[in-house]
Amino acid sequence: MKRIGIVTSGGDAPGMNAAIRAVVRAAHTKDLEIVGFERGWEGLINNKCRLLSPRSVSGILQFGGTILHTSRCLEFWTKDGLQKSAETLAFNRIDGLVVIGGDGSFNGAQALSKETDIRIAGVPATIDNDVYGNDETIGFDTAVNTAVAEIDKIRDTAASMDRVFVVEVMGRTRGFIALAVGLASGAETILVPEVKFTIDDVVGTVKQNVQKGKKSGIIVAAEGIGDTRELSRDVEKLTGIESRLSVLGYAQRGGNPTARSRYLAGAFGDKAVELLLEERINSIIVLQNGKVTTISLEESVRNKKPLDLSLLDLARMLAT
Amino acid sequence: MKRIGIVTSGGDAPGMNAAIRAVVRAAHTKDLEIVGFERGWEGLINNKCRLLSPRSVSGILQFGGTILHTSRCLEFWTKDGLQKSAETLAFNRIDGLVVIGGDGSFNGAQALSKETDIRIAGVPATIDNDVYGNDETIGFDTAVNTAVAEIDKIRDTAASMDRVFVVEVMGRTRGFIALAVGLASGAETILVPEVKFTIDDVVGTVKQNVQKGKKSGIIVAAEGIGDTRELSRDVEKLTGIESRLSVLGYAQRGGNPTARSRYLAGAFGDKAVELLLEERINSIIVLQNGKVTTISLEESVRNKKPLDLSLLDLARMLAT
Amino acid sequence: MKRIGIVTSGGDAPGMNAAIRAVVRAAHTKDLEIVGFERGWEGLINNKCRLLSPRSVSGILQFGGTILHTSRCLEFWTKDGLQKSAETLAFNRIDGLVVIGGDGSFNGAQALSKETDIRIAGVPATIDNDVYGNDETIGFDTAVNTAVAEIDKIRDTAASMDRVFVVEVMGRTRGFIALAVGLASGAETILVPEVKFTIDDVVGTVKQNVQKGKKSGIIVAAEGIGDTRELSRDVEKLTGIESRLSVLGYAQRGGNPTARSRYLAGAFGDKAVELLLEERINSIIVLQNGKVTTISLEESVRNKKPLDLSLLDLARMLAT
Amino acid sequence: MKRIGIVTSGGDAPGMNAAIRAVVRAAHTKDLEIVGFERGWEGLINNKCRLLSPRSVSGILQFGGTILHTSRCLEFWTKDGLQKSAETLAFNRIDGLVVIGGDGSFNGAQALSKETDIRIAGVPATIDNDVYGNDETIGFDTAVNTAVAEIDKIRDTAASMDRVFVVEVMGRTRGFIALAVGLASGAETILVPEVKFTIDDVVGTVKQNVQKGKKSGIIVAAEGIGDTRELSRDVEKLTGIESRLSVLGYAQRGGNPTARSRYLAGAFGDKAVELLLEERINSIIVLQNGKVTTISLEESVRNKKPLDLSLLDLARMLAT
Repeated sequence: MKRIGIVTSGGDAPGMNAAIRAVVRAAHTKDLEIVGFERGWEGLINNKCRLLSPRSVSGILQFGGTILHTSRCLEFWTKDGLQKSAETLAFNRIDGLVVIGGDGSFNGAQALSKETDIRIAGVPATIDNDVYGNDETIGFDTAVNTAVAEIDKIRDTAASMDRVFVVEVMGRTRGFIALAVGLASGAETILVPEVKFTIDDVVGTVKQNVQKGKKSGIIVAAEGIGDTRELSRDVEKLTGIESRLSVLGYAQRGGNPTARSRYLAGAFGDKAVELLLEERINSIIVLQNGKVTTISLEESVRNKKPLDLSLLDLARMLAT
Repeated sequence: MKRIGIVTSGGDAPGMNAAIRAVVRAAHTKDLEIVGFERGWEGLINNKCRLLSPRSVSGILQFGGTILHTSRCLEFWTKDGLQKSAETLAFNRIDGLVVIGGDGSFNGAQALSKETDIRIAGVPATIDNDVYGNDETIGFDTAVNTAVAEIDKIRDTAASMDRVFVVEVMGRTRGFIALAVGLASGAETILVPEVKFTIDDVVGTVKQNVQKGKKSGIIVAAEGIGDTRELSRDVEKLTGIESRLSVLGYAQRGGNPTARSRYLAGAFGDKAVELLLEERINSIIVLQNGKVTTISLEESVRNKKPLDLSLLDLARMLAT
Repeated sequence: MKRIGIVTSGGDAPGMNAAIRAVVRAAHTKDLEIVGFERGWEGLINNKCRLLSPRSVSGILQFGGTILHTSRCLEFWTKDGLQKSAETLAFNRIDGLVVIGGDGSFNGAQALSKETDIRIAGVPATIDNDVYGNDETIGFDTAVNTAVAEIDKIRDTAASMDRVFVVEVMGRTRGFIALAVGLASGAETILVPEVKFTIDDVVGTVKQNVQKGKKSGIIVAAEGIGDTRELSRDVEKLTGIESRLSVLGYAQRGGNPTARSRYLAGAFGDKAVELLLEERINSIIVLQNGKVTTISLEESVRNKKPLDLSLLDLARMLAT
Repeated sequence: MKRIGIVTSGGDAPGMNAAIRAVVRAAHTKDLEIVGFERGWEGLINNKCRLLSPRSVSGILQFGGTILHTSRCLEFWTKDGLQKSAETLAFNRIDGLVVIGGDGSFNGAQALSKETDIRIAGVPATIDNDVYGNDETIGFDTAVNTAVAEIDKIRDTAASMDRVFVVEVMGRTRGFIALAVGLASGAETILVPEVKFTIDDVVGTVKQNVQKGKKSGIIVAAEGIGDTRELSRDVEKLTGIESRLSVLGYAQRGGNPTARSRYLAGAFGDKAVELLLEERINSIIVLQNGKVTTISLEESVRNKKPLDLSLLDLARMLAT
């Protein structure tokens, strides 16, 4: 193996730059050349790339986003798009490809793997934390802390005005962010797409809290649970307590990565290069029970990561 | 003068606690007793109050919200509500009242002044910065910095994905926050309720920026300018560049006050007590050209604070 | 078991309040009464305590420090101090004691356990992360992120002025903070008490970095490695490059806990109550390989937690 | 006027990049070319410079430090150094020079003005806020907020352990930072180089506070007041209360500029270009009573900015 490619794909996540830096420097240490493709799969389709050196990734560790840029690229998913991508890899004499992204990106990598013999290593970087076989993605801890810091601020108004706040966090299909954020911010109710609920459940909890002497409250809801504006209106209507909605938006995807997101980026990036040099199969680098290891790409994309529902119980008990 | 009352009213703002502390300690230094009314005008109507001492306001300087709580109270605005409030003040032998709040609260104070002879001193504390005769309210600097920090994060995604972001900031009728935030965050377009615009203006600027080589952009819009969701959709449709909306919500109202909001709280609170002891008329403490001074309550509520449109030109030039 | 005691001991750590809240609410759920002792072991010696209810721990989750206060108490370590403490526990009919603190506090708990039959559960909360058998203490992640954020700022000056900075972080005897901070902040050199070094090593690395084109650099040093002021002077003298020292002080011990520190506080606190109800022996709640479990108090205090030296190698490679 | 030069000099300050951006874009709008000199006066002496365009200053607004780098350059102050600098300006056909820096840099600019006819405009950017005739420098508000946020964290430990903390902030000769930080963080004592004090004063205040029921305290001291380590030891020895020292170091000089520092950078930079085009004399852009205006360079460097001692009285009263 002489030359590896690197691409960041899907939504950006804090720590992607730290992961690029880690892959480039780990590869350099092992005398590999590194080619960075730009704007996700688009760069593979259109052969937009540049050589990366240890110095070209200086001073990026602490910044959100990705210096390689990323995009959502529909063309990639066509037969033609995949073949063009495979040709670009061959044209540039790429021996191995590091794909930095989330579940969707790894599905793409799996599709690409049918068109090329180049070995692929996935590095999980997405705020969604939805990669099967992996306990924590790069960027997740950052997004959770960003949201928690926002809710700490919102609590000032909630407490001063005796209001309930519905806080919508990211997560179109999964509740990992909502669960971690709700637990850490002391939310009385946490709503995730994985668990059905009725408005009566939500209203019941608010009413119980009032009886306990709580005059304000926080309901953390993943965006995937439905219409949060309506939810907030219903809460107000059915409890008689003022309720407001706050949608924590794209700021959750940006900002300087936390120490933990940076650590994962470093450990995952290093391992990805090792994996390309040593493994025979396409894999994803993962954190499992506190250890950095690997899982086959095929197994990861075939399965859906479960949500730890016991944490919902813990959160509920703590917000008693 | 022996005993003064203090009330926080309207939306909470970071620095209200610092202002309470300042009033209480300045009053204590001058041998006055201080009675804090709870939940804004509600506390006056219902005689919910407590004595405040220098120690009872310890450890609150750095926190958002208000330990006296606040509310939006419709009953206050009735003849009955105003009379009850005046009676409460008389019942508690209050000689002077410090009202901490924004433009709406001072309108309330003006209405109350018709029903009582008690002297009133207003302390401008609102993130909206819309108090006539006053250059800066307590809380404004904090809200602006919170929003700017959010946009710094959003830029990570904007730049990584070559997108335009419409960022809605608070300001239902006024553009002070939007203007200061847009200027400080390098927004290419700033939309405020005070200045008419067409979607063609906005689209034109985005297109010009693309020609200059800018691949991403930020449009800061006050909530009062209309439907920002529609605006974002139109921008995407008419420019062909991906556009996303991010609504910075109630977090702008909370959080630890900045040094500047704390300084204003201290200086205003001190001056408010001095004013009650020395002045003959109801007034508001204000910052004018860098100096802390006063303006009559009646004059402030009768006028509308103008927006400095030259700053819009400056912002536009800086985002060239 | 009907009534449990809770005490925070040793240096405060961000998340101690979250841990108190978790213990109180978990205990309440299981119909236990909770008595909080004040100022660490001092409260046991002098019987300074109060009943804690779910409402009395409202609104503390997000704040650093400890509402129970803490102290370093020499008297406790005397025979007399330990006996008085045991008597206080008996006097208050305490059936089990939760000790929230670090390695030193658990040594105290172990000593106390010789004088009483009351079961003890330790909850590791210290920024030092030095509890044997436990992968991460409450507060550690917060302290690391605080230090990393500081170094991100220091890099602005380092890069603008082409300087080396020696940054001293907390850690009198152990290098856990220095290692995690150095790794996450891209430090070119990390100095920990566990690994010997010579000034020649440090200087050699700085010189190599200059040859690679790095014009500035960060050396992260645990306070326990010796005189950092002298180190900085020597680096400047022997490399000819300007070097400055920055000692990150007590701010590392305070501030709002991170999401992760809050999560650990919740999970550890819940488990501590369960442990008191179910276990026969004195234990510490620990995180091992991503799972919350327990280790005997006696085993933990008898052993010294090893530093993962492979992370030093990773950090060095990443800072290439 | 066709071409202007720009240089950042002395210690870096948050907002210098925003000022560079403002000058470049304002100059571009007026059809001027802009040459950036590197590493402060060194770049003038050694003719290290590059052309700057509106796009070359994209994406720098929000970052601390200076993309032009800066240095402390002794050679500049020699006759030879000044002449070389003047020759470099002539060689590059520079018609006007914008100097971004603090009091020391303006002294340099004044010296340089004896050797060249090129018009000079100073832009005050230093955390020290020590420029005569100017109410606030770019970077000052940022440094103050950084220090205040640190002290908010330190208070967690101070309050939890009933300790006094001596917090040393930057300011070798002047107390502007200490005064603003102490006022905003509720310090019971503020020590500045401009005001003499005795250890008895400091100890007396601590003892009074204890009598009032305050169990912890903050003493903010400018670095220029003498040995803060000794001060902390003396406080502990003479009061019997534990005292600790925390030196807030170089982090005060870095980090993302606050909204206010960015606003000043924009307004000052714009005005500097206008000044070069319109004025006949060398001047500094200043903020006076809330308005951006100018003062002659000669007048500014000849005078010493006074500290507003009434703020010390206000701070003392507020910390009652």
